[in-house]
Amino acid sequence: MTLRIGMFDSGVGGLTVLSEVKHLLPHNSFFYFGDTARCPYGGKSKSTITRYSLENSAFLHTLGIDLLIIACHTASALAIDAVQQQLSIPILGVIEPAITCALQATRTGHIGVIGTKATIASQVYEQKLKAAHPGITVTSLACPLFVPLVEEQFPNTEIIRLVVQEYLQPLKNKKIDTLLLGCTHYPLLRPYIAEEMGPEVSIINPATTCAQAAHTLCQQLTPHSNEPLEDRFFVSDDPERFRHIGEHFLGYQVIPLIPSIPCTNFPDGKLHMV
Amino acid sequence: MTLRIGMFDSGVGGLTVLSEVKHLLPHNSFFYFGDTARCPYGGKSKSTITRYSLENSAFLHTLGIDLLIIACHTASALAIDAVQQQLSIPILGVIEPAITCALQATRTGHIGVIGTKATIASQVYEQKLKAAHPGITVTSLACPLFVPLVEEQFPNTEIIRLVVQEYLQPLKNKKIDTLLLGCTHYPLLRPYIAEEMGPEVSIINPATTCAQAAHTLCQQLTPHSNEPLEDRFFVSDDPERFRHIGEHFLGYQVIPLIPSIPCTNFPDGKLHMV
Repeated sequence: MTLRIGMFDSGVGGLTVLSEVKHLLPHNSFFYFGDTARCPYGGKSKSTITRYSLENSAFLHTLGIDLLIIACHTASALAIDAVQQQLSIPILGVIEPAITCALQATRTGHIGVIGTKATIASQVYEQKLKAAHPGITVTSLACPLFVPLVEEQFPNTEIIRLVVQEYLQPLKNKKIDTLLLGCTHYPLLRPYIAEEMGPEVSIINPATTCAQAAHTLCQQLTPHSNEPLEDRFFVSDDPERFRHIGEHFLGYQVIPLIPSIPCTNFPDGKLHMV
Repeated sequence: MTLRIGMFDSGVGGLTVLSEVKHLLPHNSFFYFGDTARCPYGGKSKSTITRYSLENSAFLHTLGIDLLIIACHTASALAIDAVQQQLSIPILGVIEPAITCALQATRTGHIGVIGTKATIASQVYEQKLKAAHPGITVTSLACPLFVPLVEEQFPNTEIIRLVVQEYLQPLKNKKIDTLLLGCTHYPLLRPYIAEEMGPEVSIINPATTCAQAAHTLCQQLTPHSNEPLEDRFFVSDDPERFRHIGEHFLGYQVIPLIPSIPCTNFPDGKLHMV
């Protein structure tokens, strides 16, 4: 049985989620869309992020997907309800599965969450953690420099260590025992984050928990078609850059470059198939 | 005589240009557009940046401007020709005036240029410097972390100093004597950049040279209307954030918040008047 699984993210970050999902569901077809013409989402408003998410989802839906994964934390936080209202297929975000796992992991009941400005300002992790377990304490923190630090592959690891230290200091003072990485890029900084927080802190990667949820969900789905297809990658801008950085995120060489294709379904110009 | 001067930038950065232009031309009306729904431009492709620039310019043109200043280096580098073809009013970018000034300033003939990835990859500064003066040597360098460092108002100045040091090291080794700040955000890092490069290096701020060019040009223009108007600020996303960060860039409190207005001329949704 081969399912067609659509995923979108504001850019390359969601490839960390794709990597984990594909690891658990290797025999399915993946259609990934990176909105590189309008990334990043993390500093933008809810209404803009919702509009972008609806456009991205509508595009993937035209490809006949059986399941849509919103691989972007910011879009999962702010737009999953709107996308669920628009599409009749199952929608999975990266947030819910991570909530469950973080609540399992915590021993003292004090959980930290780091993410983009938009994700943290939405308080979605805090609200969902407390809704599931009212006694929980949550300390949230935006780390806006982490995304460019990863995406630019900043070469000086000592400076990366100092930036991580600077941002995480308030969390260390709060004595959290579990830290949720609320942004697709942050798993690539995991060694620095883990070192800074120390061995007492459990680190939850929502890419992994999302993959487990996708695996469970897929066992209950009937595919629209049994024809297996090769994975496809679409971007709204600059396929070359996506391919280059994408390998860093996905952990393997993605993508033979295919010429860009015009796509009139997408309101913000043409799409490129990578 | 009151001219209506339109300016656009990918976001808040162009306010450093507005600040300088307004200083020299205080009695004119300024209409500033920040494309905050799609910023930053610096890592995007030429075709996308051109499309965004044409849309931004067309919007400002509907306001009856006498002059358009492209306050974004990336857009000036990649899209000024396309904008000039589209509009019949004078267009001024930030690049040309800075070229003239850098050539005046250099004593050894070795000029450094720093900017976003897109600006540096375009080689526009290098080509224009060499076209004006074939014997010149140019060393260009992208510093992609500078923009988020400024925009996020990263609090730890010691780390900012280290990032600046890391990026500029190759330029120091090349022994340039003049450094052109090829991005609107970089003047806000000027103290760190100047300290790192040392007193032998002249630092050229294109916001200042653009303001001088605008001043000269405006003396030759006849306004469409003599009615003076208050300055207006428009953004494609998140007026609150623009107002907050804008003060940091402009150096004074900009902007009483006016409710957002729908603008059907703009293809990517509605505009907000700040």
